[in-house]
Formats: sequence, C-alpha cells, structure tokens
Amino acid sequence: MTLQTPIGKYAILLASLDEAELELFKPALQELSYCQGRVGSMNMQKVIAAAETAAKRNGIIKDQCYRETHALYHAVLEGIEGVTRGQPSIGEMSRTVGLRFAIVRGKPYEDESEGEWIAAAFYGTIGAPVKGLEHETTGLGINHI
Amino acid sequence: MTLQTPIGKYAILLASLDEAELELFKPALQELSYCQGRVGSMNMQKVIAAAETAAKRNGIIKDQCYRETHALYHAVLEGIEGVTRGQPSIGEMSRTVGLRFAIVRGKPYEDESEGEWIAAAFYGTIGAPVKGLEHETTGLGINHI
Amino acid sequence: MTLQTPIGKYAILLASLDEAELELFKPALQELSYCQGRVGSMNMQKVIAAAETAAKRNGIIKDQCYRETHALYHAVLEGIEGVTRGQPSIGEMSRTVGLRFAIVRGKPYEDESEGEWIAAAFYGTIGAPVKGLEHETTGLGINHI
Amino acid sequence: MTLQTPIGKYAILLASLDEAELELFKPALQELSYCQGRVGSMNMQKVIAAAETAAKRNGIIKDQCYRETHALYHAVLEGIEGVTRGQPSIGEMSRTVGLRFAIVRGKPYEDESEGEWIAAAFYGTIGAPVKGLEHETTGLGINHI
Amino acid sequence: MTLQTPIGKYAILLASLDEAELELFKPALQELSYCQGRVGSMNMQKVIAAAETAAKRNGIIKDQCYRETHALYHAVLEGIEGVTRGQPSIGEMSRTVGLRFAIVRGKPYEDESEGEWIAAAFYGTIGAPVKGLEHETTGLGINHI
Amino acid sequence: MTLQTPIGKYAILLASLDEAELELFKPALQELSYCQGRVGSMNMQKVIAAAETAAKRNGIIKDQCYRETHALYHAVLEGIEGVTRGQPSIGEMSRTVGLRFAIVRGKPYEDESEGEWIAAAFYGTIGAPVKGLEHETTGLGINHI
Repeated sequence: MTLQTPIGKYAILLASLDEAELELFKPALQELSYCQGRVGSMNMQKVIAAAETAAKRNGIIKDQCYRETHALYHAVLEGIEGVTRGQPSIGEMSRTVGLRFAIVRGKPYEDESEGEWIAAAFYGTIGAPVKGLEHETTGLGINHI
Repeated sequence: MTLQTPIGKYAILLASLDEAELELFKPALQELSYCQGRVGSMNMQKVIAAAETAAKRNGIIKDQCYRETHALYHAVLEGIEGVTRGQPSIGEMSRTVGLRFAIVRGKPYEDESEGEWIAAAFYGTIGAPVKGLEHETTGLGINHI
Repeated sequence: MTLQTPIGKYAILLASLDEAELELFKPALQELSYCQGRVGSMNMQKVIAAAETAAKRNGIIKDQCYRETHALYHAVLEGIEGVTRGQPSIGEMSRTVGLRFAIVRGKPYEDESEGEWIAAAFYGTIGAPVKGLEHETTGLGINHI
Repeated sequence: MTLQTPIGKYAILLASLDEAELELFKPALQELSYCQGRVGSMNMQKVIAAAETAAKRNGIIKDQCYRETHALYHAVLEGIEGVTRGQPSIGEMSRTVGLRFAIVRGKPYEDESEGEWIAAAFYGTIGAPVKGLEHETTGLGINHI
Repeated sequence: MTLQTPIGKYAILLASLDEAELELFKPALQELSYCQGRVGSMNMQKVIAAAETAAKRNGIIKDQCYRETHALYHAVLEGIEGVTRGQPSIGEMSRTVGLRFAIVRGKPYEDESEGEWIAAAFYGTIGAPVKGLEHETTGLGINHI
Repeated sequence: MTLQTPIGKYAILLASLDEAELELFKPALQELSYCQGRVGSMNMQKVIAAAETAAKRNGIIKDQCYRETHALYHAVLEGIEGVTRGQPSIGEMSRTVGLRFAIVRGKPYEDESEGEWIAAAFYGTIGAPVKGLEHETTGLGINHI
C-alpha cells in the first residue's frame, strides 16, 4: 500500500498559503474535494463549529450522517491538538486564536480498498487576547471516512 | 507590533515541500537562518535528538548555550505535540514516525525589540510499525530565543 | 491479599444494565452500599456535582467529611477520564453526554486491614449536541476511602 | 437516528463477565461479530498488540487493510485511556495491568447508512508490580469502521 | 555552567512562607527582581491574569513586549500544571483555588551569557467549592526571558 | 474544618532547603512523621520506586498494605506532574532529573475525623542529559491515607 495523494499536505497548504502561492498546486487540488474557512475566537467550541459547518455547507461531509460527522470531528480535534500544543483550551488558558482552516476529502492510498479519508488543517496565530501578542500555530488531523 | 516574517510557515514549507515546490519560496528563505533534516523512529528521544543535533551542527543554535538549547527543546516538543496529537509517545503506543523537519531562526516581528524567535516544524507519516499502514502528520512549535 | 469483591465490576453493571438484567446480580449487590443516578449535560461541573450529590444524599459518603469527599472526587474524575478519553472537557469540545452512573462502597479485599474503597462508574453516550449523533462511552474510577 | 445495538455495552460485558454470567446475553451476542482475549503486561505496546492480533486472527478486521487497522487502533487507544485514567503509560509509571478484553464489530444504528462500527473494551486490574497490590480498571473505545 | 542562584527556590519560598519565615532569606532576595500576589478563583483565566498583571505592574516584565509576555505566560502555565496536577482546569472540574504566587526574575547561571530567566511559583489550596474542603498545592514554572 | 498543619509546605521545605535553612522549621517538623531522599534518573520508574522505597524503609507507610501504597503512589504521581509539567516522561522526552524529595505523613486538619494525609514533594533540576543544561523544578502531591 502506498500513500499516493497527500491530502494532509494539501490541507496544510490550503490553510497557510495565499492565493498567489496556491497557484502552483491548483492542478493537484482540482482532483480533490475541499473547502476553506476562517475563524477567530477564544472559544474552542466556535472553532470546532466553524470547521464542521464549512464542511457540511460545502458538501464535504453529509449533514445528517453521524458516521461522517464522527470522522470529521476527530480529524478536527487532532488538528486542534497541534494548534494548542498540550491542552485543547484557548479562553480558559487566557489565549485567543485567529485561524484559517481547510478540510480535504480524498483517496490518499493507491489501493482502492483503502477508500476515502479526511484531513483537517489549521494555520494562523495563537496568543494573548491583545492584538499582536501572538505567534504562528498549525495543526493537522487525518481520519478514515 | 506586527507579525512580518512568518518563520512558522516557512518551517512548515521547508518540512513538507519538495525541492521543486520550494523554488517559489527561495527568495524569502534566503533571508532566514534554517536547516532541514529527516528522522524515522519508534523512539521519541531519537526524534528530539535529531532536531537538536541538526540545529547545532548547522549553527542555528549555539552548542554550549543552555538558553538556546532550552528555547529549541520547547519548540521541538510543541511540534511533537502536533505530530503525536494527544500523547507524545510513539513506540510505547505501538506506532512509528517517518518525518522531515526544519528549524528556522529569525525575527518575525516588525518591532526590532521583539528579537529572535525559533520555529521547529515536522511533516511526514505516523502509523503502525508496518510499511504503508500510516497517514500524514505535522507539527509546529515556536519560541523566543 | 486477594481481590474478593469486585466493586468496580458491580459499579459498571449498575450503570449499564437495565432492571431485568440486574436481577442476576441482586444477591451480590445486597451486601454492598451503592446508589445510582443519571445526568445529561455539556457541562462537566454538573456531571461531577450529580455524582457527588447522589453519593451524599444516599449516605454513601459523609456530607461534611473532606476525607470522603476527596476520595469520591478522585474516583469520579478517573471515571470521567474514561468517559472523555483524553481531555476531560465536554461543552468546550462541542460535545454532550447522557450518562447513567453508580457509586459503590465496600471492602474489595479479603484482608480486613485494606478497609473500604469506593468505585464510581459511568455508562451512556457522548457525541455532538444533536440527538442521535452520539456513541456509547464508559468510565470507572476506584479509590480507597 | 437511534442507537439500537449497544456494541459498547456488549464489549464491556464480554470483557468483565464470566461464562455463566454471559449466558443471559448469549442471544444478543450471536448476532454480532466479536472476539475475546487476555493480556498482562507492564508494556503498553504489548496490550495494543494483543488486541490487534486477536482482532485480526478472529477475522474481526481485515489483516492488510490500513483503514480497518486505523479504526481499531483508535478504538483500542481510547479504551486504554479509560484503563490508565490520565496518562497512557504503565511500566514507565511503575504499574502493571492484567486485562481481559473484547472487540465487537456491528451496526449499532437503526439507519443502515451509518454502517459498521467497532468497540474495544478492557476490564481487569491495574496496580503496583506486586501481586495483589492492584484495583479494578476498565475502558471502552468506539469508532466507525 | 553552574546553577548559582536558585530563582525557582526563591519563588517557591516567596509564595509559601510568611513574613517572619522569609526574614532568613532576605539578603539573597535583595539581589533579585520579584513580586508577590494572591488570587482565589474557579476561573483559570483569572489566575493567569493575576500573575501577568502583577508582573507588569511591578516592572518584572515589560508591558508591551510580546517576547517577555510569552516567556512569563509559559512559566505561569507550567506552574499551573503543578497546581492542577494533570488537567489545567479548575471550575470545569468543580474545584476552586486560593493561591499566593511570586514571580522572580534573575540570572540563575554563573555564565553571564545564559542571561536572564523568570520563575513563577504558586502555593495555596485547591479543593471543592466549599470552605475547608481543600488541600495544599504548589507549582513552579521556569523559562528563559 | 480548618487546615491547621500544612504538611505540603513542610514537604516542600524538606525537599528544597538545606540543613541550616531547615533549622527554623525543626520544632514544627518534630511533630510529623517524614523521610527525605534523593534520586537522579532518566527513568520515571526509578523516581517512583525511590520515593516508595524510602517511605516504606522509614516506616512512613506500611509495607504490605495496598491501601497505603495506593495513597502514596497517587501523591507521588501528582508530585511528578508538577516536576514534569505536562507529560510525565523524562527519558522518552530526552530529559533527565536530579531530585531531592520528602514524604510527610500527618493530620493537617483541626477536625480529628479528617484523619491522616500524606504529602510527597520533589525539588531539584530537570534538563538535557548534559550536566548544567537544566533548570529547577518542583512538585507536590497530597492524598488522604
């Protein structure tokens, strides 16, 4: 079994590159199902909701299907572990995030029977609730769907 | 204070893009101090050591300076939190990693007094200790130095 | 020293079986001090409070005794670790729980000098704050009292 | 969508009840795919391997399919979070486990489109590496497969 | 390189000893930059804010400098890990803290090039939100600044 | 109920002060049951074993009593959470500790019915496995016994 289409890498690039930089990757991205979004909050629940809502509105996952919601939820939580590095809290730990995110769905493996997987990537800033007192952060979660 | 030079984003790109893809970012990278490396292991200690050794050998941090070693160590650990998503163990949790990493040192902020910061990024695969039974993973840590 | 009376197993059964299924275990349960309860919430504090209140109202622990409150609190928290698997948050992580719980107090060990211990077990569902988008979960904590 | 077949509850019962006690649940169990096993170790990697090997040998998951291995691995890790309550280490934290486990695969939801899910349950003892200095522990993980 | 001035130990003593007991350490303390404070809350954000505000008001760190705010923030969070032992939540876990704290800034190492470091120590009680149902707790974080 | 005898504070002082500094606290210490020890290791299991062995050899806890071993074990683990701040690993995270520790047993509360409690405190250094590349650390755990 070989990892053929790096949906995680594409998710990271979609979350961190600007439009001009993404041009280079457009051909590869056209073969994937994905969406992008933004969220700024001290409230983790809003970050999770922003990613889920974007994925549902853009048809990346089926709205009333728990199976797909469950797959995305765990991918999102794993991405948030990278963003928060250690404790998945923001407001309670007196910090805020400003994030861009991307959800990518596709078949990463050569072997057809491995089926579809989903990647959730975040890139942006985390820091004190004061403009500018912040540094970059990223996170990526991947799950079978 | 404004975040002007995204050393974290450059570290992620250095860890995840191939040579051809990196061409686009060469001009920006030339103004930074950085190194790249690879490590594959079931042993977390080896992953940490690979990053520290590469940073010291390439002069990104000063060898006998605890201050700089301490700054890099915490950046590396935060990157590993993203890689391992939840529990910073690999072998003990019956999984293995194959990672490329990059360490970038620079002045991300417009305001000169914010000084130098260091970014440690990882990108690669994590999975069962069987070739191919793995998916992508990434992590980024940032610290003042 | 031998584990003779599995108060943890009885707590799990009290939390997860229905009345008819519990019939089989009634003789053993009659020799133990226990209570049962239910709680549904996105708020962890309410889950902890429900277990503590039930234990105090049913005389499983002494109301004004910190020693016993402390023993139960840590048993409850350990049970919640199993319920939440990784991060003891619910609402902040955009999820909700619907739980049945049981607190059992007894002497699990043959050797009289090992004294009394307390078990707190939870069983129910955890999931998105949308009815039906949830799966089962359980947790057990045990402490000397 | 309704939770109709509690595969998690059956997994807990398979891991914690003895043969005689399980009689009551035999009719329901006959409609599920499951296996049982035992493992005693100070080494977490052996606990994970025991569960994976049992599931593969008994045909609960397909051997060379990463998708199914990934689903089981995360269910097992979530079960271990309940067993270890806080830090998924055993030997390093100077403790040992003696566990019975069960892996159950089935369709828990009424709605056919929710497909198959997998439950991994553990029940046994955790304690000092001295016979008898131990108490009960349990854990349950559930994942879509 | 030798650890010459234990700023962490002085921070612990400043947080835990009373005025009379501190007399013994006055000569050593006079060579350090430090402040002391108190905070009681079920809200972690208030604990972090109390420490940061005290440090800024007393000139231990520069107000508008992210570099110094970042150094202190991580020292404070590490101190809180000791206070909360496992999960940095208070109110959500149905507990409250009453803490004295001290922030110490100085040069702990003989070698001048190791520069300044900051220590944040907490000492007080943690427990149920009922007066008296609590026990002692402490925590110390140290960072380069 | 009032906290009358701060066994946690005495444990911290016993672990961090030198003989001369401890003189001041000798009268209070004479009414408590305590022991002191030292341990340096990259292996967490050795740190836990050192504390348990010292407590048993000095008669602070009863050797063959699981109840007391369990109480001390959790106090020690909570102390280690403070020492390691986030992840209770040392060698696996490429770091080493050099610690002094103290175990104190006594009746902290005015109300006789609150009985005996145990405190485990650690103070020393944590850092890279290179002499001098380390900073101070501390931790305190408290439990009813």
